[in-house]
Amino acid sequence: MPEVASGYVGLLLIADGLGDRPVPELDGQTPLEAANIPTLDRLAREGECGLLDPVAPGVRGGSDTSHLSLLGYDPYQVYPGRGPFEAMGIGLEVQPGDVAFRANFATVDGPMKTILDRRAGRSDLGTRELAAAVDGVQIEDVICRFKESTVHRAALVLHGPGLGDQVTDPDPHENGLPLLEARPRNPQDAASAKTARIVNAFLRLAFERWQHHPVNERRRALGIPVANLPLPRGPGRSPHLEPFQQKWGLSAACIVEVGLVKGLGRYLGMEVIEVPGSTAGLDTDTQAIGGAVIEAAGRHPFVLCNVKGPDVAAHDHNAPGKVAIIEKIDAMAAQIVTALGDRLILAVTGDHTTACTYGDHTGEPCPILFWGPTVRTDSVQRFGERPCAAGAVGRIRGTDVLRIMTSYMNVQEKFGA
Amino acid sequence: MPEVASGYVGLLLIADGLGDRPVPELDGQTPLEAANIPTLDRLAREGECGLLDPVAPGVRGGSDTSHLSLLGYDPYQVYPGRGPFEAMGIGLEVQPGDVAFRANFATVDGPMKTILDRRAGRSDLGTRELAAAVDGVQIEDVICRFKESTVHRAALVLHGPGLGDQVTDPDPHENGLPLLEARPRNPQDAASAKTARIVNAFLRLAFERWQHHPVNERRRALGIPVANLPLPRGPGRSPHLEPFQQKWGLSAACIVEVGLVKGLGRYLGMEVIEVPGSTAGLDTDTQAIGGAVIEAAGRHPFVLCNVKGPDVAAHDHNAPGKVAIIEKIDAMAAQIVTALGDRLILAVTGDHTTACTYGDHTGEPCPILFWGPTVRTDSVQRFGERPCAAGAVGRIRGTDVLRIMTSYMNVQEKFGA
Repeated sequence: MPEVASGYVGLLLIADGLGDRPVPELDGQTPLEAANIPTLDRLAREGECGLLDPVAPGVRGGSDTSHLSLLGYDPYQVYPGRGPFEAMGIGLEVQPGDVAFRANFATVDGPMKTILDRRAGRSDLGTRELAAAVDGVQIEDVICRFKESTVHRAALVLHGPGLGDQVTDPDPHENGLPLLEARPRNPQDAASAKTARIVNAFLRLAFERWQHHPVNERRRALGIPVANLPLPRGPGRSPHLEPFQQKWGLSAACIVEVGLVKGLGRYLGMEVIEVPGSTAGLDTDTQAIGGAVIEAAGRHPFVLCNVKGPDVAAHDHNAPGKVAIIEKIDAMAAQIVTALGDRLILAVTGDHTTACTYGDHTGEPCPILFWGPTVRTDSVQRFGERPCAAGAVGRIRGTDVLRIMTSYMNVQEKFGA
Repeated sequence: MPEVASGYVGLLLIADGLGDRPVPELDGQTPLEAANIPTLDRLAREGECGLLDPVAPGVRGGSDTSHLSLLGYDPYQVYPGRGPFEAMGIGLEVQPGDVAFRANFATVDGPMKTILDRRAGRSDLGTRELAAAVDGVQIEDVICRFKESTVHRAALVLHGPGLGDQVTDPDPHENGLPLLEARPRNPQDAASAKTARIVNAFLRLAFERWQHHPVNERRRALGIPVANLPLPRGPGRSPHLEPFQQKWGLSAACIVEVGLVKGLGRYLGMEVIEVPGSTAGLDTDTQAIGGAVIEAAGRHPFVLCNVKGPDVAAHDHNAPGKVAIIEKIDAMAAQIVTALGDRLILAVTGDHTTACTYGDHTGEPCPILFWGPTVRTDSVQRFGERPCAAGAVGRIRGTDVLRIMTSYMNVQEKFGA
C-alpha cells in the first residue's frame, strides 16, 4: 500500500523471551510478575491487555518465526529456515540460489571426532580473525562466505550453482557427541548432496586453518576453549517477503539485539540501526537503546525494538537476572513514553515464552499491552502473564499485532468500503 | 519427529459430551456445574482453564471429528466419514479402496417399508449370531464384511473393485419413517452407483436371513424388538493420517469407550487397551479405567482416555445420570492424579457439548483445564462451563490441545530458532 501518515509513531517493543512459567524461587511468580515495573504497570492500567500467541496456541516459536509473525508475515507460508536471517543480520548478502547457515565457533578434539564445546567457551576472542582466515574460500565452484556474529555465533553462506538446502546438520546439538557428516535428506537430491559435500569440505579446511591459528594459541594460553571448528546448522534459501513499507505503508526502523532479527529487518527494507552499548546481554545499555528509539521515531512512523536480555537470562535459568533486565526495560519504556507522549502507539510483548525453569522456549502465550491515545482501556491493573489473561484484548496471534497497531495509528487501508 | 522424552506423561482425559446447556431441573445449572467434583475443582484452581471448541466455534462435532481435532489432525482436511473409524474400532480391516459404513441393528416392518425402531430396542441379544449370518457374503464382485459393535451398533465394509463412497444413507434417521434406497449423490458417479446397488442388495439379503432367524424368535418371545435389518450410514474410505508417534514424537496408549475412537487410535498406531468392566454406559467401571490409565502411563508418555457416559446420559435427556457419571470421573481423576503425581501433565475436557435438554450434540464449547507442574495458574476456582470462561486459556480449538500439552511436557520441536 502507499505511504500513509497520521502523526502517530508505532513502537513494537519486544522483550525477547518475555513470557515465563511460575518460578519456585520467585514464590511461584513469573519473572515479569515479580519485577518492579511501575511504568509497564501504569501503561497496562491506562491501555488494553491480553495474551499473545506469537505463532499459534502452544507452538514453541523461535525468534525468527515469531518476529516474522509479529510483523505480519505468516511463518508457515514464508519461513525459510534460520540461516538466511542470521547471515543477513551480520551483513552477509544472501542472493537467490545461495544456501545460508547459522554457525557457532566450536571446540572439537584433535582428531575432529568429538564436539567438546558447541560454543567454544562462549568467548568472542579472535573470532573476527578466524572468520577472515576462511572467508571467501572456493570449494569446487562454490564460494564460501563466513562471518562472525556476536559472542560464539557466525554465519556461512554458500554461493554457487546447483546448491540444495535439504541437508542435515553436522552439529550434533549437544556437547560430548560426535561431529556428524552433513548429508542430503534425500539421497536422490543431487543439489543438496553437493551442498553437504561442500559443507563437509569446508569444515575440514577450517579445522586445518584454525587448529594452530595464533588466536587459538592465545586462547590456550588464557585457558579459553579453542575455536577450531565452525558448526553450521539450519540451512535455508533467501525467502520471498513483501517489503514492510509496501505491506503496511509505513517506513520503519529496526533497533534489535538479535542478529537474525536484524537480518529480517534488513530484508524487509527497514532501517537497521546499530546502538553503541547494545550488547544483547543483561549488561546492555537500555538507555542508549531508548534514545535510539526516540531518535528513530523522528524519522520513521514505525519502530521495531527488541531487547534480548530476558531470553538470555531464562536460557541460563537465571530468574533474578530476568527480573533485573525486565526492570531495565521498564525504565526504558518510561524514557520513551516521556519523550514521545501523545504521538506514541505502543505495543509491549515478547516474541515467545522462555521458561527459566526449563531453560528454553516454550509454547505458552506472552502478555501483551497496547497503549496510546486511541487505545481503549480495560480493567487490567498490572502487566503480567496472569493479569493480562483477564484483559479485553483476549488471546490473539502474532499476525494480528500489526493490524491492531495500524488501526490504532489510523493508517490502515480499509478492507471493503 | 523423532521420539522425545521428558519424564512427563501427558493424559488427555475426555469426558464424552461433557459440555451442556443450563438444565431447568438442575436449577439452571449444567450437569458439570451441579456435580460434586472436589478433585476437578482443585485441579482447576491449581491449573489453568478455558473454553474449547473441539472443531471450531459453534460447530456441532461428532466424536470422530472432535477426537481427530483433539489429537491434532484437522478434520476439515482428513475426515473420511464415520464408517471407517467405526469399522476399524471393532476390528474390521479397511483397505485402500474399501468403503465402510457405521450401521445399526434395526427393526423394520414385514414388507421392509417402515423403520419401527432404528436401534432394535437397544438390545445386543444375538447380534453376534445375526452378524455371522451375513458376514462375508458376496454380491456381484464385492465381499460384504459385517460385524456387531456395542449394543445395537455394527459396521459394514464393502471390499471390491470400483466402489465409490458418495452414496446417500438408507437410514431415514428417525423412527416411523420409510426405509430409503441408497443412491449415488451424483447419478453420473458409476462407482458410487455400484456401492448403492450393493448396499440395497445387502439389506434385502440380511432381512431375508434375519426375519425368521432363531435370534429373532427368541427376541419376539422376550418382547424385545426384532433385529431384522442392518441400517448403514456414514460411508467413507480409509483416511491418510500421519501416525501419532511420528506426528508428536510420543508413543501413546488409547483407553476409550467409543468404537470409532478405538478405530482412530488403532489407525494412528496407538496401543488400544481394552478394560474389563468398561461398558460405555453409566455403569462403567471408572476405577478399572483409571487403573488402566495408570498402568499405561508406565509404558507410554501419552495416554488418551475417553469415558462415554456423560454423552450417553445426555442423549437420553438424563441430567441426574450425567451428574452421577461426572462424579465418577472426578473420583477417577483423583485416583490418577494421586498415582502419577508430578509426572502428570493433564488436560480434562469434552469432545463436544451434548445438551440434556436437546438430547444430541450441540456446538457450544466445552470447559477445559490443564494441570501439571509446568502449567501456569489463573483465577478460576471451579471446573464448569461458566467458571472456565474466565480462565487464562481463553478460547482455544481442538487442534491447539496437543501443541499446548507437548509444550507443557517440554517435548515439542521448536519451530524456528
